[in-house]
Amino acid sequence: MTPSQAARAREVGPSSSPHELLHTIQELVADLRREDPPAADAHAIATQVKALLDEAHPADVAGVLEGLPLEDRLWTWNLVGSDREGDVLLEVSDVVRETLLADMDNAEIVAATQELDADEIADLAPDLPEEVVQDIMEAQDVEDRAQLQTALSYGEGTVGSLMDFEVVSIPEDADCEAALQYLRKYDELPGQTDALFVVDRNNRLKGSLALNKLLVTNPDVPVAGIYDADLASFVPESDADEAAQAFERYNLVCAPVTDAQGRLIGRVTVDTVLEYVRDRQEQQELGKVGLREDEDIFASVWQSAKNRGPWLALNLLTAFIASRVVGAFEGSIAKLAALAALMPIVAGIGGNSGNQTTTLIVRALALGQVSVNNARRLLVKELGISALNGALWGSVLGVAAWLLYRNVALGGVMALAMLLNLVVAALAGFFIPLAMERFGRDPAVGSSVFLTFVTDSMGFFIFLGLATIFLI
Amino acid sequence: MTPSQAARAREVGPSSSPHELLHTIQELVADLRREDPPAADAHAIATQVKALLDEAHPADVAGVLEGLPLEDRLWTWNLVGSDREGDVLLEVSDVVRETLLADMDNAEIVAATQELDADEIADLAPDLPEEVVQDIMEAQDVEDRAQLQTALSYGEGTVGSLMDFEVVSIPEDADCEAALQYLRKYDELPGQTDALFVVDRNNRLKGSLALNKLLVTNPDVPVAGIYDADLASFVPESDADEAAQAFERYNLVCAPVTDAQGRLIGRVTVDTVLEYVRDRQEQQELGKVGLREDEDIFASVWQSAKNRGPWLALNLLTAFIASRVVGAFEGSIAKLAALAALMPIVAGIGGNSGNQTTTLIVRALALGQVSVNNARRLLVKELGISALNGALWGSVLGVAAWLLYRNVALGGVMALAMLLNLVVAALAGFFIPLAMERFGRDPAVGSSVFLTFVTDSMGFFIFLGLATIFLI
Repeated sequence: MTPSQAARAREVGPSSSPHELLHTIQELVADLRREDPPAADAHAIATQVKALLDEAHPADVAGVLEGLPLEDRLWTWNLVGSDREGDVLLEVSDVVRETLLADMDNAEIVAATQELDADEIADLAPDLPEEVVQDIMEAQDVEDRAQLQTALSYGEGTVGSLMDFEVVSIPEDADCEAALQYLRKYDELPGQTDALFVVDRNNRLKGSLALNKLLVTNPDVPVAGIYDADLASFVPESDADEAAQAFERYNLVCAPVTDAQGRLIGRVTVDTVLEYVRDRQEQQELGKVGLREDEDIFASVWQSAKNRGPWLALNLLTAFIASRVVGAFEGSIAKLAALAALMPIVAGIGGNSGNQTTTLIVRALALGQVSVNNARRLLVKELGISALNGALWGSVLGVAAWLLYRNVALGGVMALAMLLNLVVAALAGFFIPLAMERFGRDPAVGSSVFLTFVTDSMGFFIFLGLATIFLI
Repeated sequence: MTPSQAARAREVGPSSSPHELLHTIQELVADLRREDPPAADAHAIATQVKALLDEAHPADVAGVLEGLPLEDRLWTWNLVGSDREGDVLLEVSDVVRETLLADMDNAEIVAATQELDADEIADLAPDLPEEVVQDIMEAQDVEDRAQLQTALSYGEGTVGSLMDFEVVSIPEDADCEAALQYLRKYDELPGQTDALFVVDRNNRLKGSLALNKLLVTNPDVPVAGIYDADLASFVPESDADEAAQAFERYNLVCAPVTDAQGRLIGRVTVDTVLEYVRDRQEQQELGKVGLREDEDIFASVWQSAKNRGPWLALNLLTAFIASRVVGAFEGSIAKLAALAALMPIVAGIGGNSGNQTTTLIVRALALGQVSVNNARRLLVKELGISALNGALWGSVLGVAAWLLYRNVALGGVMALAMLLNLVVAALAGFFIPLAMERFGRDPAVGSSVFLTFVTDSMGFFIFLGLATIFLI
């Protein structure tokens, strides 16, 4: 190894480099756009960008494409080597993938998928035109086609959708020497292979033999004596979230997937799980503010507005209903306009407090901590906390309202309304995620809209109602 | 392998089992509490729970302890075998760990850490009393103590804090036979070892040799000819987030960590990264609703209220200031109480829309997509979307207000205020996360409070201001 190679070995890691790659290319492309240079310059820039892309990992190329506006993205996409197009398509986000596919004709798409495995093609399939999927199928040999059909059959969020087919298995009656000989037939083992799966004559999974162990074991030892029969395995219909939790709990690198009869059909690897965990986290984050899908930051204004509009409409509807609660008390407000100034505080703080309760309950649900045995106890606790915080901050705000408006009764109404709305918030914050879970919705995503609706409407109602009784 | 073992191999995986374990033990403990049974029964239940715990993975035992109220948790904790206490302490959340440690005397804690590695002890250290850390240090041999001191020196959020010391390295001038012989000295290789690190005489990292490759290579081939010099490596001071992104991008299982001179000092493994990604996600989620730390769901009302109070206080303060904006227009509201009913809609929808912008900008920042070259373009786009949505939904609400109150001018003010506040929301949603990033704060966590403050205050100001000019 030359010294420059050694230096590179150390330089590759710190992964500010993908961001740097993006910034370098952003600047090169900006030069291209800015100066409208003669063809020679454009050609030089293209050569430079192509060299950078050829050296980069497909994931980093994907990052570059996502970070460029549509016109520049397509210009750059055309510089990606055709043998790497499939890998890059796999790595880009769904919305950006659509923009790239729209720029390719069917033959190009089929060619780009040539190097991909069945599970990878299945990941792309939802974004491909129906006839392209047919063309791809026809270009495959029988075994690959069968795998592709299997892969296409699994729904999102299942273990099947995370599964690949690159299993390396050995018969249970082999010895280590035979296992090693079998392995030498591979040029390279599939990535993330940390163990061989041990199967019987009917391909039924019996256990796993870690490569670690194989390496340190005498070759004439039979596999049967050293393999591990107590391993985590999944069926394709299992929940992907639970598989991800198992990978995290048990520090798995690669786990087998079997059919209902226990026959080995595929595997799930930790890199897929890590990607799944990140994607899901991102989806939840976007879902919380009503973004159905990952939005291309360079999408047109019109597309983006369409993506964001429905959420605003839903929130408008709930805000409008809450506004009608206020409308019912307009007579009181006309007599004492201070009510209008104070009412948003009561409503808002209920939302803040209720969201704390909801966040903790959503987490407890995901960890399986909420049970019939303790639900009542948890509710009582949440009510206790909100009563305590309500008494404390209600008093503070009550005194503030009293001093501000020189009106003791107004202060008292303020304090009492704060206390009551925090109790409402605890109830809503507790029951809304439980109800969403019961109805099969993800409680992490939609709970907040409902909660805010309840705490706003009830906050207005309690405060203005009490004020109307005691002050008007 | 017996048939029952084979059945078990398939049963372990589907990880509803940790939740089931928790529920079984919750019920057993509930029996214990409910019936106040004679000693024999209590003893039988304890034996049963102990048997379940002894069979379970430490991560699952941790899940059980987290899912039990304090009294039951400590009762169960005393049933955990003393040789497994250290592993369980590593797996439980910080707040639950505190409750367990409070139940142990110093000698027990020192004993529990006997089986742990330096990096694991360093993970526990922040929760241990100073004198216990000293005792643990003294109980270590020289090498372990040096590693522990190193591990303790790395701050949270650095690669050093994710690092362990279980590196398996071979000299660059060895051949594969020598490498294999060296490996056979291990009973078992450290978990997640998918490659040997290749070093020179001064322990400087030269590259890595995948176990995969070693297995399929003829033993007399020299290591120098087949190892991979182009690998991702880190220094301990690097940002843990960037390392996590590299693991995801490049599908890493295990990456070396070197000092500034390129000498191999440790490694990061994908299981640690997966746990880190999950923890960070959870912290952000909790941080968004002002929960500083992961809250023990069975903590006392008093403790929980203390954890949640400061956030409510901050939100009260911002709500109070926004309320003073309304207070300035009380004269207008007294004349036209409809303003009080309509103003929360304007404020609320600004918050919703601004949060959409912020969420996308936070994501773009994390991916390095925002640059000097495109910041202006992104801002213009966000303004365009908000103008479009503002015009659309402002018109809808304007018409609703007009019909509801039979007042065309009120409808016009409503529509204009909605439009303007959405533009304000786009500006705030764009600049607040950028400013937080600039000041070194996590934009994912605190942006929302500031944003809501701006959209509430400005929403009230714009709507009531326009109303005062045109309607009063």
